[in-house]
Amino acid sequence: MTLRIVVLLFLIHNGIMHAQKRIREYGIEIGVLETGTYNAITDVGGVRVGQVSLIYGDDIRTGVTAILPHSGNIFQSKVPAAIYIGNGFGKLAGYSQVKELGNIETPIVLTNTLSVPVASEALISYTLNLPGNEDVGSVNSVVGETNDGWLNDIRGMHVQKEHVFEAISSATSGPVKEGNIGAGTGTICFGYKGGIGTSSRVLPESLGGYTIGVLVQSNFGGVLEINGVPVGKELNKYPYRDKILNDADGSCMIVIMTDAPLDVRNLERLAKRGIMGLAKTGGIASNGSGDYVIAVSTNENNRIPYKSISSLDSFKILRNDEMSPLFLATIEATEEAILNSLFAAKTQIGRQGHTIEALPLDEVIPLMKKYNRIR
Amino acid sequence: MTLRIVVLLFLIHNGIMHAQKRIREYGIEIGVLETGTYNAITDVGGVRVGQVSLIYGDDIRTGVTAILPHSGNIFQSKVPAAIYIGNGFGKLAGYSQVKELGNIETPIVLTNTLSVPVASEALISYTLNLPGNEDVGSVNSVVGETNDGWLNDIRGMHVQKEHVFEAISSATSGPVKEGNIGAGTGTICFGYKGGIGTSSRVLPESLGGYTIGVLVQSNFGGVLEINGVPVGKELNKYPYRDKILNDADGSCMIVIMTDAPLDVRNLERLAKRGIMGLAKTGGIASNGSGDYVIAVSTNENNRIPYKSISSLDSFKILRNDEMSPLFLATIEATEEAILNSLFAAKTQIGRQGHTIEALPLDEVIPLMKKYNRIR
Amino acid sequence: MTLRIVVLLFLIHNGIMHAQKRIREYGIEIGVLETGTYNAITDVGGVRVGQVSLIYGDDIRTGVTAILPHSGNIFQSKVPAAIYIGNGFGKLAGYSQVKELGNIETPIVLTNTLSVPVASEALISYTLNLPGNEDVGSVNSVVGETNDGWLNDIRGMHVQKEHVFEAISSATSGPVKEGNIGAGTGTICFGYKGGIGTSSRVLPESLGGYTIGVLVQSNFGGVLEINGVPVGKELNKYPYRDKILNDADGSCMIVIMTDAPLDVRNLERLAKRGIMGLAKTGGIASNGSGDYVIAVSTNENNRIPYKSISSLDSFKILRNDEMSPLFLATIEATEEAILNSLFAAKTQIGRQGHTIEALPLDEVIPLMKKYNRIR
Amino acid sequence: MTLRIVVLLFLIHNGIMHAQKRIREYGIEIGVLETGTYNAITDVGGVRVGQVSLIYGDDIRTGVTAILPHSGNIFQSKVPAAIYIGNGFGKLAGYSQVKELGNIETPIVLTNTLSVPVASEALISYTLNLPGNEDVGSVNSVVGETNDGWLNDIRGMHVQKEHVFEAISSATSGPVKEGNIGAGTGTICFGYKGGIGTSSRVLPESLGGYTIGVLVQSNFGGVLEINGVPVGKELNKYPYRDKILNDADGSCMIVIMTDAPLDVRNLERLAKRGIMGLAKTGGIASNGSGDYVIAVSTNENNRIPYKSISSLDSFKILRNDEMSPLFLATIEATEEAILNSLFAAKTQIGRQGHTIEALPLDEVIPLMKKYNRIR
Repeated sequence: MTLRIVVLLFLIHNGIMHAQKRIREYGIEIGVLETGTYNAITDVGGVRVGQVSLIYGDDIRTGVTAILPHSGNIFQSKVPAAIYIGNGFGKLAGYSQVKELGNIETPIVLTNTLSVPVASEALISYTLNLPGNEDVGSVNSVVGETNDGWLNDIRGMHVQKEHVFEAISSATSGPVKEGNIGAGTGTICFGYKGGIGTSSRVLPESLGGYTIGVLVQSNFGGVLEINGVPVGKELNKYPYRDKILNDADGSCMIVIMTDAPLDVRNLERLAKRGIMGLAKTGGIASNGSGDYVIAVSTNENNRIPYKSISSLDSFKILRNDEMSPLFLATIEATEEAILNSLFAAKTQIGRQGHTIEALPLDEVIPLMKKYNRIR
Repeated sequence: MTLRIVVLLFLIHNGIMHAQKRIREYGIEIGVLETGTYNAITDVGGVRVGQVSLIYGDDIRTGVTAILPHSGNIFQSKVPAAIYIGNGFGKLAGYSQVKELGNIETPIVLTNTLSVPVASEALISYTLNLPGNEDVGSVNSVVGETNDGWLNDIRGMHVQKEHVFEAISSATSGPVKEGNIGAGTGTICFGYKGGIGTSSRVLPESLGGYTIGVLVQSNFGGVLEINGVPVGKELNKYPYRDKILNDADGSCMIVIMTDAPLDVRNLERLAKRGIMGLAKTGGIASNGSGDYVIAVSTNENNRIPYKSISSLDSFKILRNDEMSPLFLATIEATEEAILNSLFAAKTQIGRQGHTIEALPLDEVIPLMKKYNRIR
Repeated sequence: MTLRIVVLLFLIHNGIMHAQKRIREYGIEIGVLETGTYNAITDVGGVRVGQVSLIYGDDIRTGVTAILPHSGNIFQSKVPAAIYIGNGFGKLAGYSQVKELGNIETPIVLTNTLSVPVASEALISYTLNLPGNEDVGSVNSVVGETNDGWLNDIRGMHVQKEHVFEAISSATSGPVKEGNIGAGTGTICFGYKGGIGTSSRVLPESLGGYTIGVLVQSNFGGVLEINGVPVGKELNKYPYRDKILNDADGSCMIVIMTDAPLDVRNLERLAKRGIMGLAKTGGIASNGSGDYVIAVSTNENNRIPYKSISSLDSFKILRNDEMSPLFLATIEATEEAILNSLFAAKTQIGRQGHTIEALPLDEVIPLMKKYNRIR
Repeated sequence: MTLRIVVLLFLIHNGIMHAQKRIREYGIEIGVLETGTYNAITDVGGVRVGQVSLIYGDDIRTGVTAILPHSGNIFQSKVPAAIYIGNGFGKLAGYSQVKELGNIETPIVLTNTLSVPVASEALISYTLNLPGNEDVGSVNSVVGETNDGWLNDIRGMHVQKEHVFEAISSATSGPVKEGNIGAGTGTICFGYKGGIGTSSRVLPESLGGYTIGVLVQSNFGGVLEINGVPVGKELNKYPYRDKILNDADGSCMIVIMTDAPLDVRNLERLAKRGIMGLAKTGGIASNGSGDYVIAVSTNENNRIPYKSISSLDSFKILRNDEMSPLFLATIEATEEAILNSLFAAKTQIGRQGHTIEALPLDEVIPLMKKYNRIR
């Protein structure tokens, strides 16, 4: 074997190289609505994603994923936002101010549980140092997390501020890398390797033509279903099958972007539907899960300026009656984003030799056929 | 045709006689956990259900369903309870006091939207008149509802206090009638006739041995899935398929009883999982939906006496760590209860000749076979 | 004594005739902001109040107070609204839909605890029967309450739908009657006769020029303070002074109207300040209290049409930064409304000969002088 | 003048030396209930407070205050807790997990707004390194903050992890230093120097005999009232007096400890009363305020072990009916703690020569006499 092949095998083995064939490419279609161009959160105009993976030595398997709602100074031009807490065993930073004021003023950063403080500090520094923010003395950083401590030396707190800066500065539109990358580097989902996944839906023009994009950091448990097929049961990999209190824990961060002009109240309603999409994959929001859904309206007409000479802001807001198609879109895109994270993720060896296998597609695809849920 | 046959056909046509073959009897098994004896909310010890259907003339198609957590004076011996609001387009009575005080002090009554006041008044009268309650001057009635106004002359407000009294007094343990009965007489689910449905799960002894029972009043929309099979899509009956903002509205009342010794905080967490079960049937909690989940712990050791000589109440409470199997049980039982409501419900003609067809089992069963999701 | 004098004394004794000298007329000024013309909730343009008192025989001492945000069909032209629950030992109807949809679609009605259902039913009937509402089949009635069971035969449920209709139809702008009237007929506050009270504040033009109007149904306990003077302590009338668990219970309904163009999120924030005003009177939101604050923006530009040909509603919304003066206004107006209810209320004899004395102004005014808090 | 005197004057001028005469020592008594021994949060058995002040150069005026509910390993022996958000313009860490799980597992740390991440990281490190926590991989740090950016170079982020460690390790029972100390070093309250303040109440044995202790970090605005005396108005120092939108902003962190055996639901109710105490000082919870109340039950019988061989925890819980005296105690202690922070704080010069004067006691005491509210 040449050195090159050895290296290649090593890279594949460690999940560094991804083929990244997505669930839809296998002929598995989730739901009834159309996807966007990239079937990614970046289908929402202006949204960018940047990721930094930390894969070093035997036991560092973690990273950072940053999602930016627009390309401007987010502090100066805030976006309407809401956060819904499906299950709050988590350490998300920024909740209460988003709830009170109805907006987000930093990029959204995802990382591991114990790195929330450093990511939060990085977002503060990033914001303080943006041109135009010289007088800013209060920043509400929004940082989500899941716990990658099985594969990653989480107690070592290896994420540094620079990793967050890099994730933000490298953010791009277009396709989003999925699986063992960024904040998904060390996560586990339904007992298989999870990670970052994304998907989108575009409503018909007659229903508003809006786009919903979802990005997830999947790290949770339950009885896996793929497009309704009982994969967890078939593979005999699900909690309580041995009648013991084994682990269904973990968490899922769900980030929703939409260009629909939604106010905060309807963004919170939208966010609640993210958990319904998670439910369709077989997730149960177990006790130890930190399941948070962050929903942002990127609509340019509804930005909230930090300072204004007017005491009033003008908004055109979608009526309650128009929300239902967006709810369906959110459910579908969340379900598919989670499944994409599983399909993209590769087997990962980490801390103390722990190995988490990729979803065994050689077993899953036949199951999808057995149940006639693949084209 | 003899008169008897004519009457019989009439009864069948109007959904009065039910064969009531349940989804599990068709060989369709939801989830991985075991059901209780009756696969009903009444599998939780002491729980009773009573129902009164109002099917009169051309346009009265409504009713009352009462669920009693125990056989005593509920006001004197309150039960820990929580209510989670999945989507709050509804008129449920009693929410804020349950939230504040953490208990329920009346039977739970379900009926139609505009009959909440009369049912609430009935519960007050019922409670005031119970022996031992002579000095009671404040009663928090808990009444849920969905809107049966397509089949029922809801504006006529035909439910009377006596119907509520009758539902309560006729409540029994054992099997629960499902479909077009009680509060489910006039409801619609996924475009088909919905109604009352129930299911239960029993945890293995090693996981506590607790029972979770669920009863639903199904009246909502979405893209129907039965055990993961895309029935709504296959039958071409789902919202937005024609790219118009047609109706996915409606509501779902979900009542959960458990003998697990849960405090209010964990009951609220349990209640949130009810919506996850609804999601698995394809429900989307549309804008116009009033989706409420009421969760009650019936555990005898944790009753809350109205008056006490002690300033302290003693409880043994299940630890957070033990909750996840109960979450899974709730999701499964809710999903199955909704499906049972659909399988039990019969075609119903009502107001203005509106007809809502029963789920077409002759089409559904083959679909279940096509997708290999039936034994 | 002539018959006329006897009748007069009877009327005075029963609190039917009010001199209605308000706290400000005594030279007691609450806060630092200006009041509106009537120092009443009706200073907010378009707001009307109607009240019906039931004072019959020995033991009927209750009533109905209706507050209408505008003169049109409220169902067709809904108003943005939020409800904050200070302490939820109460039976308010309508909470969850207001929370979900962000609006109110009926008049707001206040009455006694056990009459919420009948008032709710009346609001439904009222709404169904309004011209233009012929097709309406779902109505979210908003009914608040406090418990007047000490003076009133509350178990007799003497309020009828007609009383609600009359309260609504008799609603007027201009001065509002306070004290033992309408829903305040039988209420008790700090151990004295409470009832209906109202007050308003108008911001300077430089701060927006908005009006905040508050109406309360006072029925709660604590250690009474009037403009900072420790009246409860001085009169030795406060809970726990004898180190026994005597009664500080009761409730307070607080209704806030404003012409400020507030969205639902900021209306909820405004509502929270109502409880801060209550706190300044010495209220403690005791365990048995149902303290609800309903806040409505009456601004004509921000009405929400029931049906619309547009999928978007346009709003001009006050920025977060501008809210603080409105918070102060709400606190002041709530404090003064409660005190007005006490100053207006007269001694009331009721059920079983129970007598609740009016606030003894002959003792209170000297106290206000002793503490130099009266002009 | 000798050097020593010069230094002394310098120290006094910079608020480093405190006479620390408390409001009660001036003969001003807040409320009707008795205080504990130290009239401090440390009157609750086992509670300790540690503080580190950073006063360096011209512009560092900040610090850390740590409150420990008991002397053991808090992660291994968690305490029931709830957090109420009066106004959420703040960056408190730890909210959602406390809400979900109902407990706190670290010391509570207060600091400045931009130092929440470093304090959070310090609490994580502290917890990971405690003996017995070797396997811990998830820590929910609870860190509160207010913004001291007027006096302090907050953008410099001068708080270090070591300061947090020192605050924790130096924590003691007994008297608590108030005013410009710890997290209160650079805060401003009603336009005067604020800071740390504390107070307590002890219920009579007949009402349970429980102790409520409160500690505040005062940094907010409004129209100052001291024991009901309109000090802000008299000193012509309050917002909007010039009809301009000047600053009433700031925040208040309120920490409540009690030995009463309260469950999470009643702890949250208790926490809500903290804001009522704040209201009595004239605070308005302005738009820019981050007003959070953290309530903890330290009762030894109700600790929550991290791991347990039993699936059940046993609790004796105070009944709802017994809560009202605790509500009153919380309101009184919060009001007095805030006033103590003002009375203890000294004039402080800080960043860019900004000077915040101490409350001018030479003017305030005569006002207290004018209004007869001092003994």
